[in-house]
Amino acid sequence: MLTLYSYWRSSASYRVRIALALKDIAYEQVPVSLIDGEQATDDFKALNPQGVVPAMRLTDGTVLTQSIPIIEYLEEADPAPMRLLPDDAVDRARARAFAAAIACDVHPIQNVSVLKYIRAEYGQDDEGVQAWCAHWIERGFEALERIASVRAGSFLYGDTPGLAEICLIPQVYNARRFGVNMDRYPGLRDVDQACTSIPAFEAAAPECQPDAPDP
Amino acid sequence: MLTLYSYWRSSASYRVRIALALKDIAYEQVPVSLIDGEQATDDFKALNPQGVVPAMRLTDGTVLTQSIPIIEYLEEADPAPMRLLPDDAVDRARARAFAAAIACDVHPIQNVSVLKYIRAEYGQDDEGVQAWCAHWIERGFEALERIASVRAGSFLYGDTPGLAEICLIPQVYNARRFGVNMDRYPGLRDVDQACTSIPAFEAAAPECQPDAPDP
Repeated sequence: MLTLYSYWRSSASYRVRIALALKDIAYEQVPVSLIDGEQATDDFKALNPQGVVPAMRLTDGTVLTQSIPIIEYLEEADPAPMRLLPDDAVDRARARAFAAAIACDVHPIQNVSVLKYIRAEYGQDDEGVQAWCAHWIERGFEALERIASVRAGSFLYGDTPGLAEICLIPQVYNARRFGVNMDRYPGLRDVDQACTSIPAFEAAAPECQPDAPDP
Repeated sequence: MLTLYSYWRSSASYRVRIALALKDIAYEQVPVSLIDGEQATDDFKALNPQGVVPAMRLTDGTVLTQSIPIIEYLEEADPAPMRLLPDDAVDRARARAFAAAIACDVHPIQNVSVLKYIRAEYGQDDEGVQAWCAHWIERGFEALERIASVRAGSFLYGDTPGLAEICLIPQVYNARRFGVNMDRYPGLRDVDQACTSIPAFEAAAPECQPDAPDP
């Protein structure tokens, strides 16, 4: 069985959980507490030198890292039962670009390590951290809303959710956490709403993970 | 002919230029000055709503964005004459993860817009900006050095450079710019050296672009 090393509130872990659930792949989950610094231990770095989650161990012991490459691997290994990338080459490039706009240009800037740095080095408090996070999310969402607002159906690329939604929904979760008003992005909000009622997205949600705190 | 909207010193533009050169694809280059804010004009945002470079216009007018999705598109469109991803699925996932570790976890945090923000909001001067950039590059390179130091040959995955080197070399260029001592990362330094003498990498270098300032 696959083993996923993840943290309940990690956005990148959340992406891989959605992909696994959409593809109906069974896996064991090993929580790595980012709050307790478990990602920075020698044991974990032996698994993933970068010291970040997610990491995925295949049945033969091979360890893969980085959420989007893991998802591309899952897609290549078995496109059934749910394709995560469009068939058409240009649509595929666009879906990947939407995902990259989140994974490269929005999410990293509000990663745990960056927030720790701006607290420690620039003296930012909770309010300052929230302003920083909201700034980068809003900047990214303004551009992505232009794409979402002209989509043809419920989802961004095609009739089913795929890589673009897999990256969007965890980012919307973060946006709400940092006080971003999603009503400013009706297209993105509606895609989020269409996804969150799908069982695979529900099962992957942070609150449903074994290491989530009791409500 | 393909049209590449790029900026000479943009790391993500540099990646696409390397890929195009490795594949020996002719293209027209349209410089977009990030210093003069040309990426934020309505004209450019009509082309790429994100307002960032690179963007690539195909011969039929289709515009693709985000460096790695553009490179994946080029690879799918014509794997010849130079494959940019390994044949083996696990190696491919690893090469993509190496690229993502740079494109997601290192590069975005020292992007122009982030540096502007820490200057304006946190009062950082040139020295502060350099310290910020060096911190994130060194953190990323420490992890990537563990991978580079155990590689089998001159390159990271296989006998020829591909997506991993395409992302690494522009990041090493940035590292030197921000005062990172590459001798601390001998594996990465040697991969860089093996690449920079290859004509495709030379042709893609920032200083060789039409919008680079005179030396």
